[in-house]
Amino acid sequence: MRMRKLPWAKSYIEESKIVEKDPGNNKGKWNEKLNADSLHLEIGAGKGDYWIGMSSMYMDEGWIAVEKNINVAAIAVRKFHHLTNPNLHMSFIQSDAEHLEEWFSDGEIDVIHLNFSDPWPKKRAHKKRLSHANFLKTYRRILKEDGSLQMKTDNSDLFEFSLLQFQEANWYLHSISVDYRREEHSEDTITEYEAKFMEKGQPIYRAEFKKHPYVNPDAKKR
Amino acid sequence: MRMRKLPWAKSYIEESKIVEKDPGNNKGKWNEKLNADSLHLEIGAGKGDYWIGMSSMYMDEGWIAVEKNINVAAIAVRKFHHLTNPNLHMSFIQSDAEHLEEWFSDGEIDVIHLNFSDPWPKKRAHKKRLSHANFLKTYRRILKEDGSLQMKTDNSDLFEFSLLQFQEANWYLHSISVDYRREEHSEDTITEYEAKFMEKGQPIYRAEFKKHPYVNPDAKKR
Repeated sequence: MRMRKLPWAKSYIEESKIVEKDPGNNKGKWNEKLNADSLHLEIGAGKGDYWIGMSSMYMDEGWIAVEKNINVAAIAVRKFHHLTNPNLHMSFIQSDAEHLEEWFSDGEIDVIHLNFSDPWPKKRAHKKRLSHANFLKTYRRILKEDGSLQMKTDNSDLFEFSLLQFQEANWYLHSISVDYRREEHSEDTITEYEAKFMEKGQPIYRAEFKKHPYVNPDAKKR
Repeated sequence: MRMRKLPWAKSYIEESKIVEKDPGNNKGKWNEKLNADSLHLEIGAGKGDYWIGMSSMYMDEGWIAVEKNINVAAIAVRKFHHLTNPNLHMSFIQSDAEHLEEWFSDGEIDVIHLNFSDPWPKKRAHKKRLSHANFLKTYRRILKEDGSLQMKTDNSDLFEFSLLQFQEANWYLHSISVDYRREEHSEDTITEYEAKFMEKGQPIYRAEFKKHPYVNPDAKKR
């Protein structure tokens, strides 16, 4: 998503109480820090519609958003500050997803969310895709044993690539939809970005992956 | 696919030399019988467009079609008899796919093809779907160790169901397309049925599965 430079973005981010200045300080302590039993992590949160929408639907759960583009991030953070009744278990990290393992300890996250991630269409840029094998290793590490990862996209190339990457890395395909919006999903929030594709009649692709095919009762002993 | 009754179908099928009257006689001997090194098996061949088209593109390979509806089968067989230069390694079985293991021995087939299979939309009929777990067991048995299964469909429900069934049965997703016709595929034939969906701008879904993630050099020793 291209964004023009916002002159107020940097200071706004710096002054916001929801933005973690040093997220590594919370490593292994996010549940405590956010006072939430379960932790959702959205990577590439863009303008924050999903982060805001989902956290408002699931008020008892923790919602952490990561977005590296400072201009987009500032818009997301501003949306948070305009909420009259925000979820009290939220956090925002304005930085690059390559640092995830510095911020989260093994098995700390319940659900990872990837929404309309940058498709990086050129083959030589595929390693930048948030569903590239290199990222999957990190996700597997920071997710709980019975954790899951959800992705939505309008991009068929990215979706197909992702399915094969997860397969290759031995993730388990828990659910899939090649036209997610053909049915109502009241459990999920529709972002402005997503609505644009729906208006054009374009399908939304969605998949949910788990680290393992079933919850292994001994998994935590490993 | 609904078909009206054709009064000539039964006798036409009975008299055709391409139709196997007792396919079990060829069990374990199909390569020899069809004089072909590799064997393709299309299950639910309908009016035979794919069987005819693909066998004409791959003239050295063996193409066996299975279709249980006698009226549709008769049309497929008639198309074969109208060919001026048919592939010499073809066969047709007009019967129900539940008998596959009576006709084919373990590891006899190279590639299984499922094209626009009946979606059986009602939940209680899902076991009739050609990608139901019960069929997958048979497919795994009759396929070579490095064999594969290709499916195409216009039906999103059937496609999603199939992906989960194959996953559950430990098949390996080798390739996937959620909009197969957005690129040209000169290696594949377009049937009349498929063309109808393409004209309407509806996506064609396609996936290719393998029994194993890679060709195991010791697989035949198992």
